[in-house]
Amino acid sequence: MRITTLSGGVGGARFIRGLRRHLDRLPGGPGDHEVTVIGNTGDDITLWGLRVCPDLDTLLYTLGGGIHEGQGWGRAEESHRIQAELAAYGAKPQWFGLGDLDLATHIVRSQWLGQGLTLSEVTARLASRWGLPDQGLTLLPMSDDPVETHVVVDDPEADGGQRAIHFQEWWVRMQASVPASRFVAVGMDRATAAPGVLEAIRTADVVILPPSNPVVSLGIILGVPGVRDALRGTAAPVVGVSPLVGGAPVRGHADACLSAIGVEATAGAVGDLFADFLDGWLVDPGDAPPGSAAGSSRTPGGLRLTAWDRPLLMPDVASATELAGAAYDLALSLRPT
Amino acid sequence: MRITTLSGGVGGARFIRGLRRHLDRLPGGPGDHEVTVIGNTGDDITLWGLRVCPDLDTLLYTLGGGIHEGQGWGRAEESHRIQAELAAYGAKPQWFGLGDLDLATHIVRSQWLGQGLTLSEVTARLASRWGLPDQGLTLLPMSDDPVETHVVVDDPEADGGQRAIHFQEWWVRMQASVPASRFVAVGMDRATAAPGVLEAIRTADVVILPPSNPVVSLGIILGVPGVRDALRGTAAPVVGVSPLVGGAPVRGHADACLSAIGVEATAGAVGDLFADFLDGWLVDPGDAPPGSAAGSSRTPGGLRLTAWDRPLLMPDVASATELAGAAYDLALSLRPT
Repeated sequence: MRITTLSGGVGGARFIRGLRRHLDRLPGGPGDHEVTVIGNTGDDITLWGLRVCPDLDTLLYTLGGGIHEGQGWGRAEESHRIQAELAAYGAKPQWFGLGDLDLATHIVRSQWLGQGLTLSEVTARLASRWGLPDQGLTLLPMSDDPVETHVVVDDPEADGGQRAIHFQEWWVRMQASVPASRFVAVGMDRATAAPGVLEAIRTADVVILPPSNPVVSLGIILGVPGVRDALRGTAAPVVGVSPLVGGAPVRGHADACLSAIGVEATAGAVGDLFADFLDGWLVDPGDAPPGSAAGSSRTPGGLRLTAWDRPLLMPDVASATELAGAAYDLALSLRPT
Repeated sequence: MRITTLSGGVGGARFIRGLRRHLDRLPGGPGDHEVTVIGNTGDDITLWGLRVCPDLDTLLYTLGGGIHEGQGWGRAEESHRIQAELAAYGAKPQWFGLGDLDLATHIVRSQWLGQGLTLSEVTARLASRWGLPDQGLTLLPMSDDPVETHVVVDDPEADGGQRAIHFQEWWVRMQASVPASRFVAVGMDRATAAPGVLEAIRTADVVILPPSNPVVSLGIILGVPGVRDALRGTAAPVVGVSPLVGGAPVRGHADACLSAIGVEATAGAVGDLFADFLDGWLVDPGDAPPGSAAGSSRTPGGLRLTAWDRPLLMPDVASATELAGAAYDLALSLRPT
């Protein structure tokens, strides 16, 4: 089976690690399932001259066994000597923290990009070091073209009363505390999907959306020309997992992002964002309409909600494995017979 | 007094630190003397996409108190986590070792160069962090234009039986064990002296050449258009310190370099390389002709040798201070009255 997923950072990476584990335990063994991950690169940023791809790195480290489990991003056993040196030199910005081991990834990525390799080629090299191919995992950036999400915020001192700042500045430095008016994917007008992305969706047996941020992770990937059409057109069932539990994001600032695009922070409203291509939408038991039987309720957009019988949270690998298994089983149940 | 020096890496840096200490102890105090250091950038290399300036960095760290005293280059209390990561990714080359703290310098330098700053401007910023201005020290790269020394070596498999390799590959990877046919300063034909370089020589009260490598350090700086003419034309006395003691280099592979340019590895022969502008040449007692009185003997090129009454070695800061003091006193004795 060929399973294709779209993913942001922490939540997606944990979910996909669970998915891989679930698939490995199925009869037939690991070799029976190939998983392709299409990673968001809208969070990418150039810091200190180095190209940083936070979501791809979180996926690499999580799937490759190098992640800092506690914080969900960055490297285990990390140190921060270089950051202190950069501060001593007055290098800016200082609001984005990069560990020493993590920096090595950015150095080598920047070197390879500078030599003319595409981000896809670079990502494949990085994935090789982290053993992804050996696990039947292929990590693709959504695009080889630089796309950087910017956030439009109010600023009385700016022309027109608004200005656009890099997503990372809003997310990391401001902790999404300043209301976002809208998101702009700078570079998307010139971007094309990376090699293999559209094919991975079109030829998949199953497509799964993990509980990634619906606006600035999945939403950005969906903006890559051809991706949404491929999802609408694929013969594979497409199922997703709600990133909201009881109206609150499991992690991150999804509610602040939804507010910017005028979407209610409910599992149903988020599912309706994807209703044009989604076949199944896994929600928390508390988010299904009261009294509805599993699979029986529908969103205003007509999407069928399926409540899983346990909370959607992923406190550990075992629970992520179970959740991913439930999503996978839902997808199988929706396959054309 | 305005003292101008030309310098390579370790030997030059230690000598200039001693010079600064000597000047600080003179009547009038530190404020009475400004020292300008013109650093060799021919050793520069781009590694993993980062611009590395080994001689400038050795000068910064030595004069700024951050040097690894034992090895003479690199940072004190250094770690090597990033290098191990780069190796895990298969990044090349692996024969050049860069510590974590040291890498921060290269990251910030590369960032600033990428933003359009000149190497002079970048070096001034780095020097500021290391407190050089507060010590009355100005560090100038010899040129803002990239100049990289290459070494022509025999290679039976190459076209013409020879090939040129980067100086660092010859020096660090091969440890100068392969005979050099000649040195080529790639980029020198398009290079100009960095701002302030020629002025610092022309307007100096004293010019001192530390015991740096006469071929690949001082020799490269002298190849920058205008530098040699400025040394010939300056009203300041120009004195140098022999980098050879008894025919052997105090440090590094100066003998292998001299052999390539067909110059005998003696203090006198090296002095004659600079005889067109040198007014005094400090040599080891063992390198002055037997029985000659101090200052009385001359090289075949007519250069007056001055034997210092102690060995030229600089095993510690105190001895470097004494040696630099002797060179400075020699220069003062040669000033027009």
